[in-house]
Parts: sequence; structure tokens; C-alpha cells
Amino acid sequence: MTLAEQVLQNRRRAIARLITYIENEHPAAQAELATLFPHTGRAHLVGVTGAPGTGKSSLVNELAKGIRATGKTVAIIAVDPTSPFSGGAILGDRIRMRELAGDRGVFIRSMASRGSLGGLARGVYDAINVFDAAGFDMVLIETVGVGQGEVDIARTAHTVLVVEAPGLGDDIQAIKAGILEIADIFVVNKADKPGANKTAAALRAMLDLGNPTGGQMLHHGVLLSVAATPPSPAPPSDWDYPILKTTATAGDGVDTLIETIFRHHHHLTQSGKLADRNRARLAADLENRLQTELLRRLLARTPNGTLSEIIGKLVKRTLSPYNAVHLLLEE
Amino acid sequence: MTLAEQVLQNRRRAIARLITYIENEHPAAQAELATLFPHTGRAHLVGVTGAPGTGKSSLVNELAKGIRATGKTVAIIAVDPTSPFSGGAILGDRIRMRELAGDRGVFIRSMASRGSLGGLARGVYDAINVFDAAGFDMVLIETVGVGQGEVDIARTAHTVLVVEAPGLGDDIQAIKAGILEIADIFVVNKADKPGANKTAAALRAMLDLGNPTGGQMLHHGVLLSVAATPPSPAPPSDWDYPILKTTATAGDGVDTLIETIFRHHHHLTQSGKLADRNRARLAADLENRLQTELLRRLLARTPNGTLSEIIGKLVKRTLSPYNAVHLLLEE
Repeated sequence: MTLAEQVLQNRRRAIARLITYIENEHPAAQAELATLFPHTGRAHLVGVTGAPGTGKSSLVNELAKGIRATGKTVAIIAVDPTSPFSGGAILGDRIRMRELAGDRGVFIRSMASRGSLGGLARGVYDAINVFDAAGFDMVLIETVGVGQGEVDIARTAHTVLVVEAPGLGDDIQAIKAGILEIADIFVVNKADKPGANKTAAALRAMLDLGNPTGGQMLHHGVLLSVAATPPSPAPPSDWDYPILKTTATAGDGVDTLIETIFRHHHHLTQSGKLADRNRARLAADLENRLQTELLRRLLARTPNGTLSEIIGKLVKRTLSPYNAVHLLLEE
Repeated sequence: MTLAEQVLQNRRRAIARLITYIENEHPAAQAELATLFPHTGRAHLVGVTGAPGTGKSSLVNELAKGIRATGKTVAIIAVDPTSPFSGGAILGDRIRMRELAGDRGVFIRSMASRGSLGGLARGVYDAINVFDAAGFDMVLIETVGVGQGEVDIARTAHTVLVVEAPGLGDDIQAIKAGILEIADIFVVNKADKPGANKTAAALRAMLDLGNPTGGQMLHHGVLLSVAATPPSPAPPSDWDYPILKTTATAGDGVDTLIETIFRHHHHLTQSGKLADRNRARLAADLENRLQTELLRRLLARTPNGTLSEIIGKLVKRTLSPYNAVHLLLEE
């Protein structure tokens, strides 16, 4: 039985192995993923993003427990920048496993960047497809919400949660990080701490200033802007961008949050926005893969030494990067 | 007189206008930049990165003042994620301008992302070239140090400062963010706050666990790995990765930090590492530009409607992203 066939039967070892193949860019991964792709498109993708210190990971754990209690299955992809110092990704898995261990309806996986951010985004998209094809009802994608690349990974989900916490430096931190625009649901976690109401009020005030757009205003890549599709006329938004308070460590507010996540999915389906988001995600993914493959092919046909020579000229300033691009593409 | 000629004479209006052209991807920018490129390569590029709340911006201001006092000129590029809510970039400039206004040896410029992270990186590289060609002795590049993309922008500098502060959530925040590996100099800012010594000690302990590599261990892009150059044999590092304490708001420790920055530049020059870093930065920049141009050319020759049709098939799951890439490239 192929790895893909085993994944379709929700075999945990096969899922884990295929994701390892994805991370290592193992040559066997692509064919398995192509086999799985027709079986995707059913899972509800939920992005969870926020600054360090907001208690995102604990919240995601509680969400997973609560969602399991409704009978649905859930996979978690925790996107974690690599560190040779900490081996953070593996550690995170172990801490979480203790709590949710033994439940076959939950699958937790950290994914770390081995190199480029584009590579990480491709890996996360691939892993989403694996969990989706394996039949998980929901895939939670957790990212650190400060870097634009990491935010981009989360915002292609169907439902995006932005997590805040009281007392994390100044209140405009979240605005500066530019993550408010992508939120469908705001969560003020650590709501038992002083200042939670103030943080929620600050969020409310900012929402009244400008309308969040659930990713609509943001750049969706070159591909989608070129693809000749009439943009669906934006109807006046009938989503209320709720601001919810939770205390993940005590489980407080998590049930309401889960209801709100389900309500958002219903809203997306009813309004036709689910299709728009799927389209945007698939176009962004295709763009990423195209650029990688285009560069690979260019380098494969560039004579040995030419590239080195060109970089040498850049260093000596006898050739500019602008002219180097044309030189390499004209050869 | 062309814009480039005016930039070479360090005319502020021309510098500002060319950077605006760069941000807007104005068609005139590339020719001006190509003209300026042979005049670059003299400035000392200093990256400053750290989590929100570490007081990076105040520190950068104090650095600029202190460097001016040594007689050198300095340009600051503050990389700021865009927010339609706050217009953060412009606000930041205004606050800073008050303090350093009137000094023609300082130029402060915020750059915001209009869309893709790759676009932002290209813009920052271009702006560095503008300031370098205009004759600024030092260019400070300030980024939020959590996202990998933003960290990538900072780490291509010659000297990378990683800024920490006591009491920002848990101590392992910095490790998880994976920014320790890229530091040449560690700064514990807000050193007047409780816990500064603890933060410095935690950094020291982590440094003793593993050697930071000043960007050497990190992925430098596909291009550099393909370019057939014998990697210079890594000599035992003779750089001591200092951990310095500053209180930017009071100016404490800033002079020592500036001396250390100059000492690092001397170290890079003496050890030959300056050339390695220049090479890595230019290769990363070329790779970014190549990928963008390759995609642009592919889309220009793809028949109208084909792309839209392919994305439609992805949405219907009748075509996988893996096969779509080959389909588009074979056409």
C-alpha cells in the first residue's frame, strides 16, 4: 500500500512519515501529495496568530480539547522558527503530547523552517493537504504573528484568529505588526490578568476606526491579480469581528470561542467567501511553487561558473543586480 | 541633472524621491539604481533587530546621535509592516525627526511593505544602495526580529545587533524566535529595569551552549549554494560575541556599543569576512530579483485565461498544484 493510500485511511505513522518527507523535500513526497490532492478541500482551516507571550500555544491546546468534545477531529500544525540552540519544535510537541496523548482524533505536528520562508510555506500547505486528505475535520495552523511571512501562512486559512494579551508592552504593538487586518476573530487571552478589558476596548476602538477586511485588502500575490476573474463585488460585510476574552490555562471562554469559529465557517459558506479564500490560498501556493521551479530550471541550464562569475562582478561593482538579472535570463 | 547624479551629491530631496520611486516600483527607478551601483560598497551596514517592546527604535536613535558625534554620517532604514489602521511608518518618522531634525548628516526613512515580503527586501536593498552611493558612512537597518523574513533583511548587514530587554515574557522567547544565531553583538536594552542581569546571564549561558555563527549556519539561498566557489575554510572564530547593556532612554552604554560596532567592522575587514558577507548579500538580492523577473516573464507569455482556468481546476481538485506547475512551464 502506498503512503498516500495509508494516509487516506488515517494511519498515523504514514501521516507522520509523509510530513517528514515534506520537510526534508524527499523526492517521493510530490507523487504522494498529487495522489492525495483530489481528496482535499473538506477540512476547516483555522489560523491562529499572535505575538510571543500571548499564550497562543495553550489556547490552541484548549481549542483542540474543546473541538474534540464536539466530536470533530483536529490536527495542529505549529509553525516554529528553527533554532539550533533549542530544538524548539520537538520540545513543543512533547509538552503538548502529554496533555492530548492517546486521543487518536488529535494530531499535533510542529514544522520548522530549514531555510527559506517560501520553503516553509510550501511545507505547511503540503501538510494541510495531508491532514485534510486523512479526514481531519479541522486543521489549526499556529504561527508567531509578527513577521509578515508567518502572518501570510496563517492568513490563508478560512478563519483567522488573532490572539492578544494584556500588558504586553504598549498597546499599539499589535497595530504596528499589521496583524489586525487579517483577523476574523480577536481573542484577548490571559483575561484574568489586569488590563484585559483595556486591551479589548483598545481593539474595539481600532475596529471602529477602520474596518478589518479578513485578508481582503492584503496583497494576494501576482498570480491572482493576473488571473482573469471578475472579482466578486464586495457586499457590505455582515461579519461582526467579535472580540472574545479567554483564559486558556483555566479553559475559560474557550467554548464560546469554538462556537464563534463554527459560526464563522457557516458565515463563509453562506456568503460565498469560502470559495474566494480557497481560490486565494491555492493561487498563492501555485505562485510559490512556480517561482521555485522557475529558479531551479534556470540554474540547471546556467553553465557552471557563470553564476559564480556574475556574483564576482556584483562584488566588484562592475555589474549591477539589475543588469545581472537580464544577463542571466538572456543567456 | 539626473536623479542619480543628484543622489551622488547627497541631495536630500533626490534621495527621498528615489526611495519613493523604489517603494512604488516606479519604472524610472531601475536605471537610476544601475547608475548608482558602481558607487556603492563603502558604507558599513548595521542591522538592528529584536522583538517588539525591546526599545529598538530609541536605541537606534541614540546610536545615530552617538555615531554623528564621531563625525560619521548615518542613514536609518526602519522596516515597518504596513498597517492601514495606524500609518505606522509615517508616524515613526515624525517622532524621530523631532530629535534629530536639522542634522544633514542623518537621514531617517521608514519603509513599509506594500505587499510581498520579497518586494520589501528588494526595496530595502535598493534603499541601502541609494544611501551608500550618496556617501553615508553607516546605514542602520532596523527590523522587528520575530518573523524570519524580517530577520533575513537584517542579517545580510555587515554587523548584526540583536536587542533584548528584561521581563518580556519568558526568557526563551528570543531562542524560539531563532534570532540568536544571527547576532554579532547582543544588547540588553532597558538595563535599568529589574532582571537585566538575569537576561544577560541567560544570553551568556545560551552562547556557551552553542556557538553563534553570525549568519554562517543559516540558509543563504539557492544561488550561493550553486555558485561554484570554494567556501573559505572557517577559521576558529576570533570574535567574542559581546553582550552589552544599554539604557537607550538615558543614553547609558551607547558609547561602548558604538565602539563595539566599529571594532566588529575592523574584525570583519581583518578576517576577510567582510567580503563573504558582501557576497552573500548580493547573491540573496540577485536570487530575489531573478525569481520575480522569471515569474513576470512566465505570466507575460501565458495566454489570457489559461491561468484562471488552471486555478479553477485547482479549486475543483481536478488538477494538483504539483501538476499545475509543470503544465504552466511546459506550455
